[in-house]
Amino acid sequence: MNRLITLLTDFGFEDNFVGIIKGVIMQVNPEAITVDISHKVRPHDIFAAAFLLEGAYKYFPKGSIHAVVVDPGVGTERNIILVKTRDYFFIAPDNGVLGLALKNEPVEKIVEVTNSKYFLRDLSCTFHGRDIIAPVAAFLSKGAGLNRFGKEIRYMREIALPPLVREPNRIIGKIIYIDSFGNIITNVKGLDIKGISANLRVKIKDKIIAGLNKSYSSVEKNSPLNLINSFGYLEISVNCARAKDFFGVEIGECVELLK
Amino acid sequence: MNRLITLLTDFGFEDNFVGIIKGVIMQVNPEAITVDISHKVRPHDIFAAAFLLEGAYKYFPKGSIHAVVVDPGVGTERNIILVKTRDYFFIAPDNGVLGLALKNEPVEKIVEVTNSKYFLRDLSCTFHGRDIIAPVAAFLSKGAGLNRFGKEIRYMREIALPPLVREPNRIIGKIIYIDSFGNIITNVKGLDIKGISANLRVKIKDKIIAGLNKSYSSVEKNSPLNLINSFGYLEISVNCARAKDFFGVEIGECVELLK
Amino acid sequence: MNRLITLLTDFGFEDNFVGIIKGVIMQVNPEAITVDISHKVRPHDIFAAAFLLEGAYKYFPKGSIHAVVVDPGVGTERNIILVKTRDYFFIAPDNGVLGLALKNEPVEKIVEVTNSKYFLRDLSCTFHGRDIIAPVAAFLSKGAGLNRFGKEIRYMREIALPPLVREPNRIIGKIIYIDSFGNIITNVKGLDIKGISANLRVKIKDKIIAGLNKSYSSVEKNSPLNLINSFGYLEISVNCARAKDFFGVEIGECVELLK
Repeated sequence: MNRLITLLTDFGFEDNFVGIIKGVIMQVNPEAITVDISHKVRPHDIFAAAFLLEGAYKYFPKGSIHAVVVDPGVGTERNIILVKTRDYFFIAPDNGVLGLALKNEPVEKIVEVTNSKYFLRDLSCTFHGRDIIAPVAAFLSKGAGLNRFGKEIRYMREIALPPLVREPNRIIGKIIYIDSFGNIITNVKGLDIKGISANLRVKIKDKIIAGLNKSYSSVEKNSPLNLINSFGYLEISVNCARAKDFFGVEIGECVELLK
Repeated sequence: MNRLITLLTDFGFEDNFVGIIKGVIMQVNPEAITVDISHKVRPHDIFAAAFLLEGAYKYFPKGSIHAVVVDPGVGTERNIILVKTRDYFFIAPDNGVLGLALKNEPVEKIVEVTNSKYFLRDLSCTFHGRDIIAPVAAFLSKGAGLNRFGKEIRYMREIALPPLVREPNRIIGKIIYIDSFGNIITNVKGLDIKGISANLRVKIKDKIIAGLNKSYSSVEKNSPLNLINSFGYLEISVNCARAKDFFGVEIGECVELLK
Repeated sequence: MNRLITLLTDFGFEDNFVGIIKGVIMQVNPEAITVDISHKVRPHDIFAAAFLLEGAYKYFPKGSIHAVVVDPGVGTERNIILVKTRDYFFIAPDNGVLGLALKNEPVEKIVEVTNSKYFLRDLSCTFHGRDIIAPVAAFLSKGAGLNRFGKEIRYMREIALPPLVREPNRIIGKIIYIDSFGNIITNVKGLDIKGISANLRVKIKDKIIAGLNKSYSSVEKNSPLNLINSFGYLEISVNCARAKDFFGVEIGECVELLK
């Protein structure tokens, strides 16, 4: 059985939303185990959710069900989809949020979730996490086959990393995420700098950070550094301090890799 | 057995309080499962806790034990009570916090929790969540009968929604809660506007919002709307934005339903 | 078996770090149960983590494994250690964070964790919580003996409470922690004031608070008070308000016990 259901939402912890979703899951399958990936995704930020899911999903046991509820389009015509890959299940609104995770995870089947037999009876138009995603994930965790939930479809929306801009003398990347330690994560992956990592120079806000380090503490406290982080992304950090504040940057700003 | 214990507190996540409560529960009953409803209730805000409990309790499996620790009177003469309804158990300080949930949940028995045999040995006067509520909930989850914990009592404190003021040309309601998305929740329930929902006009801070929508995305982005939310309350929202900031309102302010 | 693993980190909830650690644990031992002590330790604040661990560890069932990931030195030469006491296991970076908890918990064995057979295969230099501490804790929870993980060592780093300064007419203590209710916790323990508790006068920021109360509500609302809190420390509080703001103090400032 696939008892483990992970939850990734923008619900925060102030309200009762996350607790309710867990209650619904346990009403359907008392043996289910839920694990929070995060509930502090910036409200409606599909890209951030996609990024956090990509980093986390493969650390869970095979057969785990990953449920995502970042759903600015709740109540509109957008579908809810169930995706099976070789090792995992995913359930989410069809808004692209699975795009980054599924780039490396060959999709075996996509189902449009429509069978209201598996929904809560009083279906709202504002809380499909509770009324659809939670019970469907829970029935899936009890072993219900994918075909039960709706008909197979061919396509789903998928967001992608913003592309790198490659120029003769530089590669232009972007800040895609800033973690809670203030570390700056870019859309540059380890492979992208294969040839130039020995002489890497990263320009961020008129400052140039040279070299590629292995760990934060490779440099003095309060000094900046580049590293390929534990998820494979180029990260610009400051040892024991917040790089975000050190450089004064925001998500979406550019960084340059100078050749 | 009633293995599931939900927790609703104002303890936040900065400290170790919530973890300690779970540890105590598991010392008494290693098979217990705890689920957080919320721990970010505004400190000492009994009404907010009551509201969150009302919205959440019935989504949990029958037999669940709902433990509430929002307890500004800890260490005073206020009782701790254990309440059995047909489907659930509740344990909380007798400060009214169960009032909203129990309005729709016929009470079968109320017990004043006094039997210190079920408390932690070194009883403090400042952390009854750890010393009384956690172990009592855990013993209850192992199947201990209610009579073990103290004697039956007839009455408990119960807070209620602030009443609506009905005038010839309008109904005056109040903002009772603002969720983490900034949605504004009022004390007006779906039934209260049965006759007027087709022509509903809600006045909030000199703005009038007309109509009753089904979902946030029924209107343009950044436009306001009224809806009956997934818990049955009239909610004033702004699609993909924070209604609280859009209108500049706080809990306790009035809204008017114009006839 | 020791199925219960507690987690204490400075990872916060914004990112996916905590979820990933739980995923890794469940990949190794699907029967493991994780409980969060806190994930909102101030980034890199080893003392705060030590304080929260001391207050919490002994409320968990015997055999529990306490995993701490507050690790400003990740990727440097600092060791990761596994400690067995009579009743518990601890795993943490060797940076002193176990010092307060282990003062009262006789140590039976300390092991330097070096056997990479129990680590994740792609070992990073920036996320040892995921790559080392999580899988080692999980293998331990399956019953693996301590010797499997590395060789026994004799010493570990241990931080301690800042010492009291005892002068003829006063004892000078320090604010060591401020909880999420704004309560001010000092390095003075109940035993330290044994002789003077009847006439206790605590000077904090030019204000003198007299007496020793049992509970917050022993004084009027918004009035200050002293008490020995539920963890045995002298705490300066304000009934139903935030003592931190009332006095305008920060961690590290002095308080005086006048004789």
